[in-house]
Amino acid sequence: MSRWSPNARGRLEQAAYELFLAEGYEQTTVADIAKRAGLTERTFFRHYADKREVLFGGSTALQDELLRALGELPPALPTIEAVRIAVEAMSALMHGRRALARERQRIVAAHADLQERELIKRATLTAALAQALQRRGVQEAAASLAADMGIGVFYVGFVHWLDDPAGREIAEIVHEGFDQLKALASGA
Amino acid sequence: MSRWSPNARGRLEQAAYELFLAEGYEQTTVADIAKRAGLTERTFFRHYADKREVLFGGSTALQDELLRALGELPPALPTIEAVRIAVEAMSALMHGRRALARERQRIVAAHADLQERELIKRATLTAALAQALQRRGVQEAAASLAADMGIGVFYVGFVHWLDDPAGREIAEIVHEGFDQLKALASGA
Repeated sequence: MSRWSPNARGRLEQAAYELFLAEGYEQTTVADIAKRAGLTERTFFRHYADKREVLFGGSTALQDELLRALGELPPALPTIEAVRIAVEAMSALMHGRRALARERQRIVAAHADLQERELIKRATLTAALAQALQRRGVQEAAASLAADMGIGVFYVGFVHWLDDPAGREIAEIVHEGFDQLKALASGA
Repeated sequence: MSRWSPNARGRLEQAAYELFLAEGYEQTTVADIAKRAGLTERTFFRHYADKREVLFGGSTALQDELLRALGELPPALPTIEAVRIAVEAMSALMHGRRALARERQRIVAAHADLQERELIKRATLTAALAQALQRRGVQEAAASLAADMGIGVFYVGFVHWLDDPAGREIAEIVHEGFDQLKALASGA
């Protein structure tokens, strides 16, 4: 086993979710995860601080994609349109991951400390978006509101996506969420 | 000292904030708070589970007022208008409490566990509003979005209120926040 195994992080994540599904989140240890991934515990700890962190490892990628997408948009775009496009781009990272996301949601819902962690991640994502909007020249209060709305649409869409009867992808559901937001705000 | 002192809860809150300001949050003990309020520790624990709880004791009153105000509104009112009126009514509970709120904000900002608690209170408030909107007949996704927006406007307004240069009251700032929300959502 080489010190830097190819895609060790992805293999650890995959192994962790397989075990969480099969054995339960509490019963699964870091040793179990490393073994199933064919890696050492030492390698696990190079990628994740603990078992819990596997569940939240994707949030950095989400935030990076959100800010990257926003950074590419012309400054003249209305704020809500910029937020919509960036949040849709972020959502697209989750395509093909519905089964994992559903299992993750079930685990988080069952643990108060994981729910807290989830709320912190959401607040961090919202604050990062608000700051990025301010750097685009949006005033502080408007930036905070727009970020709150955009991340709110994302989370509402995310929950809907997990059990969408039509099996649509999350970016499509999020796109509709922004239409719904506009309709709501205009008094529908 | 009678067993059921009049307004014991208010006196304990007042004493706690005085001590937090004068001595610091960490240095203040439950014994200190009870003594300053002229009450026993036993009385303190009838009203608050711990020192931390004093900082969050108002959130039940906020939620009660939010739902009470919403419950009085005609069902035909557009969702966003109903949310606006209910959130403004809730905000009005904070009138005259700016100095306390500012000190509270400073304490919460300095402690990660209190920030988590604050996020949980916000999520609880949002969920309660979303459920109440559903009981009014608003569909689930729209109810979640409208609740997110409404509580988002409240928190953005709250932070603004703490340092508003014009010294306006929070309900006025929140009222403007809803205008800003409409402008943002319509592409301003």
